[in-house]
Amino acid sequence: MHNLPRMNTSELIKKKRNNLSLTGEELKFLIDGYLNGEVADYQMSAFLMAVYFRGMTDDETFRLTELMIDSGVRLDLSGIRVPKIDKHSTGGVGDKTSLILAPLVACEGIAVPMISGRGLGHTGGTLDKLESIPGFDVNLSLKEFTGLIGSAGVALAGQTKDFAPADKKLYALRDVTATVECIPLITSSIMSKKLAEGADGFVFDVKIGRGGNLPGQNEPVELAKKLISTSRRAGKKAIAVLTDMEQPLGRKIGNWLEVEESVELMSGSMIPDLFKLTATLAGAMIFLGGKSSDIAEGEQIAVSRLMDKSALRKFEEIVALQKGEVGYLKDWTRLKRSRIARTVFAGESGFVSELKADIIGLASIDLGCGRKKISDDIDPLAGIVLHAKIGDEVKAGDPVLEMYADTPERLDSAEKRIAGAICISHNKPESRKLIIDILD
Amino acid sequence: MHNLPRMNTSELIKKKRNNLSLTGEELKFLIDGYLNGEVADYQMSAFLMAVYFRGMTDDETFRLTELMIDSGVRLDLSGIRVPKIDKHSTGGVGDKTSLILAPLVACEGIAVPMISGRGLGHTGGTLDKLESIPGFDVNLSLKEFTGLIGSAGVALAGQTKDFAPADKKLYALRDVTATVECIPLITSSIMSKKLAEGADGFVFDVKIGRGGNLPGQNEPVELAKKLISTSRRAGKKAIAVLTDMEQPLGRKIGNWLEVEESVELMSGSMIPDLFKLTATLAGAMIFLGGKSSDIAEGEQIAVSRLMDKSALRKFEEIVALQKGEVGYLKDWTRLKRSRIARTVFAGESGFVSELKADIIGLASIDLGCGRKKISDDIDPLAGIVLHAKIGDEVKAGDPVLEMYADTPERLDSAEKRIAGAICISHNKPESRKLIIDILD
Repeated sequence: MHNLPRMNTSELIKKKRNNLSLTGEELKFLIDGYLNGEVADYQMSAFLMAVYFRGMTDDETFRLTELMIDSGVRLDLSGIRVPKIDKHSTGGVGDKTSLILAPLVACEGIAVPMISGRGLGHTGGTLDKLESIPGFDVNLSLKEFTGLIGSAGVALAGQTKDFAPADKKLYALRDVTATVECIPLITSSIMSKKLAEGADGFVFDVKIGRGGNLPGQNEPVELAKKLISTSRRAGKKAIAVLTDMEQPLGRKIGNWLEVEESVELMSGSMIPDLFKLTATLAGAMIFLGGKSSDIAEGEQIAVSRLMDKSALRKFEEIVALQKGEVGYLKDWTRLKRSRIARTVFAGESGFVSELKADIIGLASIDLGCGRKKISDDIDPLAGIVLHAKIGDEVKAGDPVLEMYADTPERLDSAEKRIAGAICISHNKPESRKLIIDILD
Repeated sequence: MHNLPRMNTSELIKKKRNNLSLTGEELKFLIDGYLNGEVADYQMSAFLMAVYFRGMTDDETFRLTELMIDSGVRLDLSGIRVPKIDKHSTGGVGDKTSLILAPLVACEGIAVPMISGRGLGHTGGTLDKLESIPGFDVNLSLKEFTGLIGSAGVALAGQTKDFAPADKKLYALRDVTATVECIPLITSSIMSKKLAEGADGFVFDVKIGRGGNLPGQNEPVELAKKLISTSRRAGKKAIAVLTDMEQPLGRKIGNWLEVEESVELMSGSMIPDLFKLTATLAGAMIFLGGKSSDIAEGEQIAVSRLMDKSALRKFEEIVALQKGEVGYLKDWTRLKRSRIARTVFAGESGFVSELKADIIGLASIDLGCGRKKISDDIDPLAGIVLHAKIGDEVKAGDPVLEMYADTPERLDSAEKRIAGAICISHNKPESRKLIIDILD
């Protein structure tokens, strides 16, 4: 900070409060000062709340992102001489596409440096799903991670402290000061970690609907645009796919259940929405990786990699390389489940008109699929299997879904909650559009 | 907090952020929690910034005020069997009306429990002015303060830690988080101290113009309305006088200089703007005290108390009772000044069109009238004497003002600054309206 003019934190907060843009130097003063203790946490939280109300320009968002990257290491993947494309989802219920996309796209000679997170709120996390495979190790060092990408073209790892530690500190503050739901701050948080990981391009799956992490219709679109503009400023290619998240994706929710459904799809089963979304996202990744002339052609390539089982073989290879039990995985048809099952039946005849993804997500946490407190254990075999999806006709007494947990208490909690998630109507509801829009 | 449902601080911040009103219990949770450490300062500052953007209803403002009062003691003046009326000014440059109003109104059998502050920013403070009288003691205990009001009908004291300590803690946080300029928070801060002091009614002098502490025209009006509504909710009478603060009030700025000008006025000198404002505010206080049928009649009574010198005699009585040297005061015609004087001359002929009060206030601090740091000493005899005011005709080379300080360096700083405060125009500017409006 030696070359900076002396800045006053309170004046910088006031500047944002008064709807003026901050320069890169001013943002640097705030972020560096926050990390070294010169800017107090009570000043940073007031600043973040001012950002909530005033927003940030694309330039400010990019500079904030860069400052957060600079607080940690940037992975150097320049030694890997193939295109490197990553995917990021804003989070949904039953969304296991990462498990399929990573091996599928890697089959095409595109490296996939995929760093994932744990479950958050009502949405599941890729790491928790991978760890339902006994032995699977997501705690890779940067060296192991880079090594696997070089050799196998793909690695599935957890967020380390090396990337954007400033984001971690800021996020913890936002979490307790009601400043999480803010597009430029969400953008910087996502992009600081993604850019630090060294990919050449990104496909963003931005969820719209009650099961996503952003409310309304406009905010996800705004976020998608901001993710693209920030990627561009960093010299990266980017596509955002806006997708429906009113009901869970696929038919299975839970950690092992989602691995199982992924393997099912890669083994040739048709699971329409999961298939469509996976193909679209893979198509976009293949296109960004320069292996197709457009997304549609990429999609065709993706489908053939699913059909000829090369994606499945690649997934088994990753599991083996990351110390997971491949035998356990191959044995997926045995339908491993928690100790106790309970079925929820349709109370009346009609069409399923709602399957509220956020409530189903919370019910899955009741069952043991996620954590309410950081110290909670996860039950890898707990979860929910949907027997019907929105638009399906059911008769009174038909099973709508099945729940699995290790204790009756867990089933009781989930059952109580899930009653509010299912609606049955007399008329067939309009069919939902899964791929709402593609922005690039 | 035993009877409160368990509240989540972050949810309360979010509620305000989302433009909903907080209940009294929710505000109590926040304020009590802030005082006992359960609500972190970084949460309170985020909440305050949300209040900056969303405001507070009259009900919220009143409840916040009550909570801040409840953090300290309430003075019980019920034993004093006369009306008790106080005045509060939002702060200006050269505003010495408190020094005149307190004795003047006390002459009419109205008790004036006046608790004042120190200089803040570019504006002076009544306590610093009083302390320019050698020996004058503003540090009264609550017992001494109540005793003086009972015996002399008036006391001039400093803010003690007994009143609204929550306000002190909150204000310190607001000061470093750009959340000072917020009408409901300003209102609660003012009213919590005023209501704790036990008066029956209040006259507010709300300044409009660059020398005041609030920007623009609308914000002071809003503040005036909020001060009145909060007083009413507390069962108190209130009048707000909106007054011009583009140029300093009167002709003298500085601590002793302002005592001197007050004595000058009380001795029969005509200082038009100071006279008019004093008479209006005193008229409003006398009316609220029930000693006149309207403000105008109160104003007439006030003028006669100035003319017959009873206000001056009362002021001398207060000075004696609070251990000030009355001889030093009576010797005011000797024009006591700091060691060095410097005159600022008109650069051209014309009419004085601007005398920017905020800049002149800052120049007076350069001269030693106020503190830049809390530890700075004040020079009681430093200051500025205006030879012309807005609208006066000057010839090139005429003195516009005279500055006094103890060192040439201080004069240099003030001179440099003050050059930007004076404008001279060819045409006579429109005359300014001193009393802009009276709200009740």
